[in-house]
Amino acid sequence: MNKIKCGVIGATGYAGAELVRLLASHPYAEIAAVSSTSAEGQALESIYPNLKGLNLPILENADSLIETCDVVFASLPHGLAEELAVKCLKKGALLIDLSADFRLDDASVYTKWYKKEFNHPDLHEKSVYALPELSREAIKKAEIIGNPGCYPTTIALGLMPALKNGLTNDEHIVIDSKSGVTGAGRGLTQGTHYPDTNEAFSAYKAGAHRHTPEIEQTLSRIAGREVKVTFVPHLLPVNRGIESSIYFTLADGVTFEQVRAAYEEAYKDESFVRVEPDGAYANVKNVRMSNFCDISLHFDAHANTVIVCSCIDNMVKGAAGQAIQNMNIKFGLEETAGLTAYPPAF
Amino acid sequence: MNKIKCGVIGATGYAGAELVRLLASHPYAEIAAVSSTSAEGQALESIYPNLKGLNLPILENADSLIETCDVVFASLPHGLAEELAVKCLKKGALLIDLSADFRLDDASVYTKWYKKEFNHPDLHEKSVYALPELSREAIKKAEIIGNPGCYPTTIALGLMPALKNGLTNDEHIVIDSKSGVTGAGRGLTQGTHYPDTNEAFSAYKAGAHRHTPEIEQTLSRIAGREVKVTFVPHLLPVNRGIESSIYFTLADGVTFEQVRAAYEEAYKDESFVRVEPDGAYANVKNVRMSNFCDISLHFDAHANTVIVCSCIDNMVKGAAGQAIQNMNIKFGLEETAGLTAYPPAF
Amino acid sequence: MNKIKCGVIGATGYAGAELVRLLASHPYAEIAAVSSTSAEGQALESIYPNLKGLNLPILENADSLIETCDVVFASLPHGLAEELAVKCLKKGALLIDLSADFRLDDASVYTKWYKKEFNHPDLHEKSVYALPELSREAIKKAEIIGNPGCYPTTIALGLMPALKNGLTNDEHIVIDSKSGVTGAGRGLTQGTHYPDTNEAFSAYKAGAHRHTPEIEQTLSRIAGREVKVTFVPHLLPVNRGIESSIYFTLADGVTFEQVRAAYEEAYKDESFVRVEPDGAYANVKNVRMSNFCDISLHFDAHANTVIVCSCIDNMVKGAAGQAIQNMNIKFGLEETAGLTAYPPAF
Amino acid sequence: MNKIKCGVIGATGYAGAELVRLLASHPYAEIAAVSSTSAEGQALESIYPNLKGLNLPILENADSLIETCDVVFASLPHGLAEELAVKCLKKGALLIDLSADFRLDDASVYTKWYKKEFNHPDLHEKSVYALPELSREAIKKAEIIGNPGCYPTTIALGLMPALKNGLTNDEHIVIDSKSGVTGAGRGLTQGTHYPDTNEAFSAYKAGAHRHTPEIEQTLSRIAGREVKVTFVPHLLPVNRGIESSIYFTLADGVTFEQVRAAYEEAYKDESFVRVEPDGAYANVKNVRMSNFCDISLHFDAHANTVIVCSCIDNMVKGAAGQAIQNMNIKFGLEETAGLTAYPPAF
Repeated sequence: MNKIKCGVIGATGYAGAELVRLLASHPYAEIAAVSSTSAEGQALESIYPNLKGLNLPILENADSLIETCDVVFASLPHGLAEELAVKCLKKGALLIDLSADFRLDDASVYTKWYKKEFNHPDLHEKSVYALPELSREAIKKAEIIGNPGCYPTTIALGLMPALKNGLTNDEHIVIDSKSGVTGAGRGLTQGTHYPDTNEAFSAYKAGAHRHTPEIEQTLSRIAGREVKVTFVPHLLPVNRGIESSIYFTLADGVTFEQVRAAYEEAYKDESFVRVEPDGAYANVKNVRMSNFCDISLHFDAHANTVIVCSCIDNMVKGAAGQAIQNMNIKFGLEETAGLTAYPPAF
Repeated sequence: MNKIKCGVIGATGYAGAELVRLLASHPYAEIAAVSSTSAEGQALESIYPNLKGLNLPILENADSLIETCDVVFASLPHGLAEELAVKCLKKGALLIDLSADFRLDDASVYTKWYKKEFNHPDLHEKSVYALPELSREAIKKAEIIGNPGCYPTTIALGLMPALKNGLTNDEHIVIDSKSGVTGAGRGLTQGTHYPDTNEAFSAYKAGAHRHTPEIEQTLSRIAGREVKVTFVPHLLPVNRGIESSIYFTLADGVTFEQVRAAYEEAYKDESFVRVEPDGAYANVKNVRMSNFCDISLHFDAHANTVIVCSCIDNMVKGAAGQAIQNMNIKFGLEETAGLTAYPPAF
Repeated sequence: MNKIKCGVIGATGYAGAELVRLLASHPYAEIAAVSSTSAEGQALESIYPNLKGLNLPILENADSLIETCDVVFASLPHGLAEELAVKCLKKGALLIDLSADFRLDDASVYTKWYKKEFNHPDLHEKSVYALPELSREAIKKAEIIGNPGCYPTTIALGLMPALKNGLTNDEHIVIDSKSGVTGAGRGLTQGTHYPDTNEAFSAYKAGAHRHTPEIEQTLSRIAGREVKVTFVPHLLPVNRGIESSIYFTLADGVTFEQVRAAYEEAYKDESFVRVEPDGAYANVKNVRMSNFCDISLHFDAHANTVIVCSCIDNMVKGAAGQAIQNMNIKFGLEETAGLTAYPPAF
Repeated sequence: MNKIKCGVIGATGYAGAELVRLLASHPYAEIAAVSSTSAEGQALESIYPNLKGLNLPILENADSLIETCDVVFASLPHGLAEELAVKCLKKGALLIDLSADFRLDDASVYTKWYKKEFNHPDLHEKSVYALPELSREAIKKAEIIGNPGCYPTTIALGLMPALKNGLTNDEHIVIDSKSGVTGAGRGLTQGTHYPDTNEAFSAYKAGAHRHTPEIEQTLSRIAGREVKVTFVPHLLPVNRGIESSIYFTLADGVTFEQVRAAYEEAYKDESFVRVEPDGAYANVKNVRMSNFCDISLHFDAHANTVIVCSCIDNMVKGAAGQAIQNMNIKFGLEETAGLTAYPPAF
């Protein structure tokens, strides 16, 4: 079989570099092209010496990249993906977009949070919000793939069985998330300067993070009614990993045992979701460098509240790994192709 | 003026070592004695080389220590403080206990969570739960001082103005806390072994931590009615610091501006509580090595939910520093004596 | 082809767990058995939840493990490998020993540093000190494989081209090495307790580390004359990685350009050694999770001194990965089988 | 007594912020003015919220600052201090300069390494290289104080007793230093971006760091003959602290016991230098936040080599603390004034 020709737009960013690393050992894919606006003409290995030896193509521009690829992974700031989609559709390449541009259904919501318009509303009819565990069949048919955000992935997987089965009294769900610093990207900021980040911890954008509408859209879709959340992210002094602690009260008459049973049933055939045994806690260290989402369930009986802890590697299941999982689904490959590495213990 | 003769029982533990460090530069106190069961007869500087040069007394036993001190700081596992209190009262020394033994009013609650009895119920009449910002006057009169827990300090200070002024719809408050690893103490465990802790993050004892009854006791006392919380602590890979993110919904008719005003009013004369300006976030790095509690206030209007972020250094305001603040109050000193050091920026 | 049946003795230790992780994705090997004295009868996934999903065999004892395996990886404290070797030879299994027991040629040197005797001197005739880049042909013929130490691997690879080509004035080589904390193993010690290790840095066993005789044995063998080193290890607050900074003065008439040329020539066909370009520095982050050894070369002209910086992941090229590389050599597989993963950038 | 009016030029940089923190608790000094080119007119507390509550003066410009101060601490990039010195001398203020501008005696050496000229050679006659343990008497008389570099401080203190007493065979001294990330300052660079720095370690500027001439100048002055070093710094993933491992061979006939005796004698009356007992290792964690320099001595008998491990907090003894120590000396205060805080254990 010919290998799938993959291109990575924005290869010098963190998600781009992770895509390259993972695709390099994918059995059915090859890295046909990489692009970068800031480093066109350079070797990616000169920027990421960890990759030395892969003999990657030289960084080119996005347009020439699209011409040579079957699949185009785009990891750019929001607002640029529609134009890429037009070009990919014309060329017959699949666009897997890691930005927020193909995640929101409602143009006005997108405009409110991202200060941009949908210039090509028709494209959004052809795209899918591609969380595999939720929308596997739709992904197979989509022409454009909108890869979910990192925080929303932990939250959707952390709540899906509860919402789908009506186990929550979902007036109001509190979500307290913590992300490793790679989530902020490779760009330099005072807040990610080592001495300012190390031995530090705080919330940011409390109740005001752009992932909020994406989270509520997905949860409402799952629940079949409007779900409202308070979402507060925090910056965690580790390189990789997100932990979301999710708090909901049980619906009347529902027991915690039913909750556990629903989660085990929902994920029993999923390759990448692991439900922790009773008493164990999901920990970012157990999913690092892998595409797993680990979920643990806890109960505060005196307040009738369930606590779900949901962990992923933000760069893998939260970005590059999930994008590859989506490619695998779309191309009819086994879903784990190129994603079989287990997390290291340390 | 003669300096106050201070003794530290459990000086080889982390809170004990921090007490020694802080007392060493207290203008009105001197370290008259230090004790340790495991290291009696040794020099504390041999265990903590950072302290070399202080010329501390040799580690002795608790009984001989009490005989030479005006104030006895005890930092031992729970279940041992009542016996110390008997001895201190007899000698005429003030006991400041950093364990949980003098924190809970209700003997049955203590027994439920700590599996021990109150053997001397009368002592608990003479003791006070000594959070200075809440109980300054009572501390001045108490014969035994029960120093608050680290998590409960962030939470009581983080909610006091809201509860006291009836601003919350307090059916149910969610508290998501994160603590640096010194909170687990100096004893060796797999969970605090460096490679298992570094680049890791998870919750523990969700809805089941022993600080829960202490938190609810304090909040209920402030509110004047029963307050129920869901409290989930997490282990944060930093040495020092606690951040508690606290979620409550506003009472009917209350605005966020009223909340902010209540906090600013409540703490305007407090030396150790700093309310952050609008848009800023409390961060553990800004309180490290100091007795400050930094509090920031945020509002999720679409869910009518206030988020309070409350940060302390768990070893200072959460343990040793607050104990010294209590000594200062009891002895009529300025409350900041020995606690004037500002946090380093990095 | 039938997969090679591999067994890991000491699977609950860090090197053992890393062997399991790497072997799990080896295309020609399977994990037939795992053993542990402390956890016999348990599932390894219960101790290492990161491995959940691998469906590993239950932990058994070393004797039964040997019976079912073609290759036995032993990762135990020193002094136990000879007995394992007797059993493996009898069974016809290849022993790859990660302890120090098959590294030293001279029984008296072993006894001096490890306080044990060679009880079976004949076994040491059948074993090889298995640094592939140095002894590939001997490894193919050996009946017992002594896997090199982590520090010695960085140092032998860092000096081999210089010593082999007589480029050093090797009266005295200074080696300043720094190792991540996994190098100290999974056992609990005060020195690896998180708050004592984080934000800390110091040397240990200066001029007295047990790797010194192994280093001098290898370097002397390469140079063809006695080489003496001063070796000082330091504990580095990261999980993984060793950096050795090696200082030697140039032999008369030798230029730094000749040194660089010798290194590039020596390693041009090696899969796992990467010589950095001029001006770049070997960094532990660029080899993490991989079997690479990155080497950079620097020159202090005013003191006629070359500085070699040599980096590996102590758990991979310094332990588990190199052991698998040795298995590959011995079994005639491509040397990179199971070791093709590239290091992550972060 | 009136307090000394202190000004800090470059207060928004890391060394400047540390000066402010330390001066704020100095018993005989007050912060009369702070300046910053980039943040003139702002409150320093808005940039460093850790300082909130100090009620510092608003950031002004350097010229107006000088007018109001008795002592001017300047923490700016090199090349700017001569002009400040002219103004300070005119005003009658003492300049304590933390840049490299008043460290080197030889104008040509300065020009070679810093690409600038001495425009006012006469000023360098009035200045002193102010390492207190080396030049206390000269500091008392100097009109301008050149504060030593961070690395050179560890090295000068680490070698002074050996060189002064002729104990080394000092043909060539190897110095392998490691510095925490604050040493690189507050400015943003890719190399100090958190995900690129955390879990990373490498050398930089091997044999080519600008501190080399300063080191050799000081060591040669101490030894009374030319001393040559190979100096290689490394970036250590901690916030604060420098460890220098220094390697020298013993002069003929000298024993290690004589070395130890010389160090203990040299530093027995020094307030800030602590010589570790036999078997202990200097560790950056034991000096953090303090003005101490901890020194440990080790011997590799088989290579006749002494290893000195010398640790400081780069921001305190390596910058702000030493500057204050110099002010204390110049003003006839006790040398420890404002510097009495002991390092925390964690």
